[in-house]
Amino acid sequence: MAKAYALGIDYGTNSVRALVVDCADGREVGTCVFDYPSGEQGILLDPKDPHLARQNPADYVVGLEASVDGALAAAEKQPGFTRSEVVGIGVDTTGSTPMPVDGMNVPLALDPRWKGNLAAQAYLWKDHTGAEEAAAITKTAAEHAPRYLAPIGGTYSSEWFWSKVWHCLKEAPNVFAAAHSWVELADYVPAVLAGISDPARIQRCVCAAGHKAMYSDAWGGLPAKDFLKRLDPKLADLRDRLYEKAYAADRPAGTLSSEWAKKLGLRAGIPIAMGGFDAHYGAVGSGVRSGTLVKIIGTSTCDCAVASAKEKVRDVPGICGIVNGSIMPGYYGIEAGQSAVGDILKWWVEGVCEGDEKLHTALSAEAASVRPGQSGLVALDWNNGNRTILVDPLLSGLLVGQTLHTTRAEVYRALIEATAYGARAIIERMSEYGVPIERVVCCGGIAEKNAVFMQIYADVLGRPMLVAGSPQTPALGAAIAAAVAAGAHPTFEAAQEEMTELKEKRYTPDPKAKRVYDELYGVYRELHDSFGGVPGAKGDFPTLMKRLLAIRERETAH
Amino acid sequence: MAKAYALGIDYGTNSVRALVVDCADGREVGTCVFDYPSGEQGILLDPKDPHLARQNPADYVVGLEASVDGALAAAEKQPGFTRSEVVGIGVDTTGSTPMPVDGMNVPLALDPRWKGNLAAQAYLWKDHTGAEEAAAITKTAAEHAPRYLAPIGGTYSSEWFWSKVWHCLKEAPNVFAAAHSWVELADYVPAVLAGISDPARIQRCVCAAGHKAMYSDAWGGLPAKDFLKRLDPKLADLRDRLYEKAYAADRPAGTLSSEWAKKLGLRAGIPIAMGGFDAHYGAVGSGVRSGTLVKIIGTSTCDCAVASAKEKVRDVPGICGIVNGSIMPGYYGIEAGQSAVGDILKWWVEGVCEGDEKLHTALSAEAASVRPGQSGLVALDWNNGNRTILVDPLLSGLLVGQTLHTTRAEVYRALIEATAYGARAIIERMSEYGVPIERVVCCGGIAEKNAVFMQIYADVLGRPMLVAGSPQTPALGAAIAAAVAAGAHPTFEAAQEEMTELKEKRYTPDPKAKRVYDELYGVYRELHDSFGGVPGAKGDFPTLMKRLLAIRERETAH
Repeated sequence: MAKAYALGIDYGTNSVRALVVDCADGREVGTCVFDYPSGEQGILLDPKDPHLARQNPADYVVGLEASVDGALAAAEKQPGFTRSEVVGIGVDTTGSTPMPVDGMNVPLALDPRWKGNLAAQAYLWKDHTGAEEAAAITKTAAEHAPRYLAPIGGTYSSEWFWSKVWHCLKEAPNVFAAAHSWVELADYVPAVLAGISDPARIQRCVCAAGHKAMYSDAWGGLPAKDFLKRLDPKLADLRDRLYEKAYAADRPAGTLSSEWAKKLGLRAGIPIAMGGFDAHYGAVGSGVRSGTLVKIIGTSTCDCAVASAKEKVRDVPGICGIVNGSIMPGYYGIEAGQSAVGDILKWWVEGVCEGDEKLHTALSAEAASVRPGQSGLVALDWNNGNRTILVDPLLSGLLVGQTLHTTRAEVYRALIEATAYGARAIIERMSEYGVPIERVVCCGGIAEKNAVFMQIYADVLGRPMLVAGSPQTPALGAAIAAAVAAGAHPTFEAAQEEMTELKEKRYTPDPKAKRVYDELYGVYRELHDSFGGVPGAKGDFPTLMKRLLAIRERETAH
Repeated sequence: MAKAYALGIDYGTNSVRALVVDCADGREVGTCVFDYPSGEQGILLDPKDPHLARQNPADYVVGLEASVDGALAAAEKQPGFTRSEVVGIGVDTTGSTPMPVDGMNVPLALDPRWKGNLAAQAYLWKDHTGAEEAAAITKTAAEHAPRYLAPIGGTYSSEWFWSKVWHCLKEAPNVFAAAHSWVELADYVPAVLAGISDPARIQRCVCAAGHKAMYSDAWGGLPAKDFLKRLDPKLADLRDRLYEKAYAADRPAGTLSSEWAKKLGLRAGIPIAMGGFDAHYGAVGSGVRSGTLVKIIGTSTCDCAVASAKEKVRDVPGICGIVNGSIMPGYYGIEAGQSAVGDILKWWVEGVCEGDEKLHTALSAEAASVRPGQSGLVALDWNNGNRTILVDPLLSGLLVGQTLHTTRAEVYRALIEATAYGARAIIERMSEYGVPIERVVCCGGIAEKNAVFMQIYADVLGRPMLVAGSPQTPALGAAIAAAVAAGAHPTFEAAQEEMTELKEKRYTPDPKAKRVYDELYGVYRELHDSFGGVPGAKGDFPTLMKRLLAIRERETAH
């Protein structure tokens, strides 16, 4: 059998990575990272508005050529590789990261008239300028079209497509008027490679559409014009210039144009897989399947699971998104997440204790010698709000049980435990609604390096904690999609079987520790339900944190 | 008018201080501190039992001569002072600090047969070895004699007289059997100076008797023999060898013996005032009077107030002690306290942030720039339990409202605020039961040095915060008692008028800050009442902290 290689291209927050892998076994033969040159580490900021985070679309195009060429050049140093053996290309990106484009699918930001205008750039996933618009969308949907909210957990986010587009319409109407259409980065890059210059012909992935733009086949695509008209008639008009249909990755986004084939030294016409979100393709590259939760653990976490599309999956209250085909064809893609995990530990170690990487290591080592329950501490993991299952950004942290002898390592451990309890709440909610989870596969630096963290999770979750074999699962997942699109494997499942692996080190629950954590999780849930405002909860503090945040805001403002 | 000087002797935890003051104006003319030579900083410890804290009675006697002679020698360097002008002596000590004595009022510990036996030493106030005995006393009294618990807030403490004596009986029955009687340090030192060698003739102060030994004129003195018999018949027998009557400071404890007069170069026969507790005489030296709360702020706080004995003061639930005559003759002495104030800040700065004195200063400065409510934080001040008004050692700390941006200085400020809320809860409880507080006078290093702390207290309490003029108010208060005993002033009130003063610096409430703190105190009380188990509280977590402590104990033990 001839050698076949797949190319995965992963657009992260600060850089783009290209990865060349062997379709036979997923072996990585070449990689290259390109840092976005614009702004602060690739992010355009506004000193007057901390909620703004944009990117220069020019960086995406420059980075595409540079990273892919670099990865191919690196692969060429391996014996036997030639560029002509690359059979397909896959792309994953951050999202929702939409940008306004003209009638030729060229980002407005590349037009000298709009260059440098922040409103005309790409709206990075973590741009929160559309907070008011998000609240208005949630309110309007709750009143007039509650079905739109069911699959997204009940709350529309400021990080999502319509909040951003509407914000542009309100803040920079001239930019909005100049835009022919809007394109998600995940759809834009495959279209560029395929040479698609008409926005109407771009293949739109259901990841972005379903999870971020309230798209569903159940109601005929994007939200109805009547609904959008309630927000702003101009949004209803825009709907005609967006798309009727979005697709899972069971069809390609296009084929490589001769122009880009020449630039990259690849064969023209090789398939380009449907674009997807980094977390989703990361789940694919981690071996996601029924019964497996993939946790991408970073500053926050993104949790991905799939459930066979043969059985109808109910909406799960508090779970951000359930979209048919969004992670892998043939499955419902289910997305959840925790607002702060690495960030909570960073806050404690670097913010409060004023330490560095060394202190992370020292506190982990010290925390390892504290037995479950021994600190007497329980914390809530809400320093950055709660994304799942309460979907409430207006929550805050809580620590209880401290004495005069409580150490910083004990608090560090309690914060890890708190995030593990938060993870357990998500898994229990999924199981309760028919998505049972038997094992957890993790990716990210914490999973690879922090054994204390992983053992606590195994003991709290009562499930084996596994670590993905590749350190760059999103790019690997995109390469898998490419391999499938190219026919190197018949299905995603078959490709995963050959191309993904787990690290040998796995963490299994200790039954004794599990028993203590079952008890402490009970305490966590009492606090969680009371302070989180769960109806019928034992305690009665549904508004306490919100009141404190309101006081803080008021007293900071004047 | 002839010059007259009074001598105050203050037995602290680590040292004894003697102070010579001018009866006319309280001016300090000589002082000397003597560090107890035994044990660790004067405390005998048991490496096997962290709850044990004893003292060597020999240190008290050696320290008496050394400190007084030192103070007199220092005074002699002042123009015009002679030892013959000393007209009286007052003594204050820690307490409850009882010790076993023989039939000649000699501490067993001074007898070569018992020397070095820890059970035969003085049981320092913070010795907690009698925790089980304290719980049994509370239980027995609750069942058979609840009236004994009413004036002490409902709970008998392991720090108090009967817990310690009973513990000796159980742990070292030979020592208990060898003891003829037991004497509080506050009664022992005046008896030594007066040359009283018969325990039956020792004048017992109502401070120690009323606050620590369940003594009350209302039931004819110490607890009835029937009650003591329920604990142990030998305690009932001991009652006969203790005392029938205890007294306020309106009568002297005795007059200076010729033996001690010769040792010290003083006139024999000058009056020795009734002994008292350091906190009580500290309140006297701070100018305590109706409507004034004196806060002695250290690692923990002791709060003292007085209410005219002409009006019957009701028992105040949760206030540790209300004893007629205990602080000043003619008043009910009311004692409350917070289990941790300086200790909570020390825990945060030194324990968690691993800083030193410099960091205390830096965090205070930074905390000063945080406005009330601006941190969004509220804490409970229970890292060491709650002494008043919940009287529950099995409570722990709580912090709520933290985000990823919360700083160590904000937490530091929140902890100061938490102790201020705790102080407000005490003042409100007193007012509610007929002891209104109009101003607060503070003593201790924090009061003198930490302006942020004091301003927060003024704003939270809504009352002026004043600072006692003398840095050694207990010794000054003892000297005032001596001056009154000697007739240099007709009453305590008159003596205080002339001999005490306040520092010029005073802290007045800022109305705007007060309003924010009124709101935050509401949040504190919601948490306080819920987690503290106040019946009918809004929330519902009366056992949560206790469960965590129980889990901690269980998991630490095995």
